[in-house]
Amino acid sequence: MRYVARVEVSLKPGLLDPQGKAIEGSLPALGWSNVSDVRVGKYVRLVVDATDLEAATTQVGDMSRRLLSNPVIEDAVIREVVEDAVGNGRA
Amino acid sequence: MRYVARVEVSLKPGLLDPQGKAIEGSLPALGWSNVSDVRVGKYVRLVVDATDLEAATTQVGDMSRRLLSNPVIEDAVIREVVEDAVGNGRA
Repeated sequence: MRYVARVEVSLKPGLLDPQGKAIEGSLPALGWSNVSDVRVGKYVRLVVDATDLEAATTQVGDMSRRLLSNPVIEDAVIREVVEDAVGNGRA
Repeated sequence: MRYVARVEVSLKPGLLDPQGKAIEGSLPALGWSNVSDVRVGKYVRLVVDATDLEAATTQVGDMSRRLLSNPVIEDAVIREVVEDAVGNGRA
């Protein structure tokens, strides 16, 4: 069975995020001065071929820690693991 | 009222994603050969000060199109806009 997983990787709170600061700095020029705390991270979407949802979720958790994120400075959050609907798996 | 928004920005389907291909290529070496269709994008989390949820959502949509993504090659999806709980807004 194919499962689609979405993982969000972001810098741990407190670490300097220059990309987020850059976005925050350019928002007032576009007329938005009510935005704060902008943080930018990575978003990874992948398809896992696993026997069941639990196996897929466990594997995605392992991959998040070992490859997709640097656990020293980043947090990885699995946002979703769902069975692949027809066509959804196409990249 | 403060609202926390999460936006995912990813390359449109069909566009070449070298970062995703690189991840896909290194997975077998770690023992995972059942993963495909890896796509990497950006994840943006921000705090908007707005009068209500609707105003916040509308503004995040505008920001996604005008600043956070390049609509020609990227899709931006607002994953969540929720009222900020105490402490959640801290970056």
